[in-house]
Amino acid sequence: MHDVIKIDVKEEIQAENDRIASDTHALLKERNIVAVNVMGAPGIGKTSTVKGIISHLKAHRPYVIEGDIEGDIDTQDLLERGIATLQVNTFGACHLDAPMIRSALERMELEGPGLLLIENIGNLVCPAEFSIGEHIKLLIVAVTDGSDKPYKYPLAFEKADCILLNKVDLLPYVDFDQDYFMKGLRALNSEAPVFQVSGRTGEGYQEVAAWLESQ
Amino acid sequence: MHDVIKIDVKEEIQAENDRIASDTHALLKERNIVAVNVMGAPGIGKTSTVKGIISHLKAHRPYVIEGDIEGDIDTQDLLERGIATLQVNTFGACHLDAPMIRSALERMELEGPGLLLIENIGNLVCPAEFSIGEHIKLLIVAVTDGSDKPYKYPLAFEKADCILLNKVDLLPYVDFDQDYFMKGLRALNSEAPVFQVSGRTGEGYQEVAAWLESQ
Repeated sequence: MHDVIKIDVKEEIQAENDRIASDTHALLKERNIVAVNVMGAPGIGKTSTVKGIISHLKAHRPYVIEGDIEGDIDTQDLLERGIATLQVNTFGACHLDAPMIRSALERMELEGPGLLLIENIGNLVCPAEFSIGEHIKLLIVAVTDGSDKPYKYPLAFEKADCILLNKVDLLPYVDFDQDYFMKGLRALNSEAPVFQVSGRTGEGYQEVAAWLESQ
Repeated sequence: MHDVIKIDVKEEIQAENDRIASDTHALLKERNIVAVNVMGAPGIGKTSTVKGIISHLKAHRPYVIEGDIEGDIDTQDLLERGIATLQVNTFGACHLDAPMIRSALERMELEGPGLLLIENIGNLVCPAEFSIGEHIKLLIVAVTDGSDKPYKYPLAFEKADCILLNKVDLLPYVDFDQDYFMKGLRALNSEAPVFQVSGRTGEGYQEVAAWLESQ
């Protein structure tokens, strides 16, 4: 009996989430805003990616929604740089969902053409399960975390529209098997472009920004 | 109405989990097995920590339960090294729970005194919420992922009995502010020992193993 209730509730939550995500998706498109769901593990470089992309935008106004369980360290940093940023705290929840983003958007004034970067909670598992109304799912992984990630966390790689391999400045000091990584990735996702970047040196973000602006 | 059902089910699941975890905790203690819940983000070095600790055990037989969403890469590696390892796959679920570990233990023959290392799913959020019957919660973070993790993922730090700061061989090449990290950590957890380790060089695991054996 427990199991039946559990499944019903989970399906209801997911269906309600997808309905709201679909509305958000359409609304943003109408306003000429491209929304990017920025996903990756804790410390993988989501905020440095947001900064890196924004510094190379040519035709789109930058907007950011910063998702965190608690705190607003990165939002303060982005606001100080003059970037229109809104903090969303989940207070324990392990991913952003579509209702959270809908509420956040009610508090933002967006003017198109714009690129809205939504930094999800640091988590390689749960965010991949919930659409938040994005047009592009951007996944970040790093050379410091081993080349076996596609084999262990397949859903995130399968769903990604664009993949960033971060911290490439540390390649000389780690054992990262690029062939093994790409083999695992391509078995799950044959299309997403893969960009090599470094949050530390700023390398690679120009190409990512150009690709996003072309979508 | 939805919310009410949601909360009831979540509380029921948590209560049932805690009841089973409590049974497992007692059963393992009775058999003279110390169970360690090894937690940390994807690629943080959970498996290298398991290997590093086992190589320095003096008075305890080593046992491993490998938690993964999919696949058994690390279990194959550990079995090849002659370590008694059982694979647990969650097929999508973002953390191990007490029923999974109870089932796994039914398939293992444990002889005390033993140290059972349970490698949780790579996730800095959800595993911290679920007890699996462990005696010690061991949290791993890394110098490559920034010094702000205690501020962003407080629950994992708050609950940890022992914290490993991994990848210290890369300290010269990254910007890691140890004072800021320790300040955030100690605000949440005044007691847990912090060990500096490197999965790459093997540094530090002797001290971790000695501490675990002394518990």
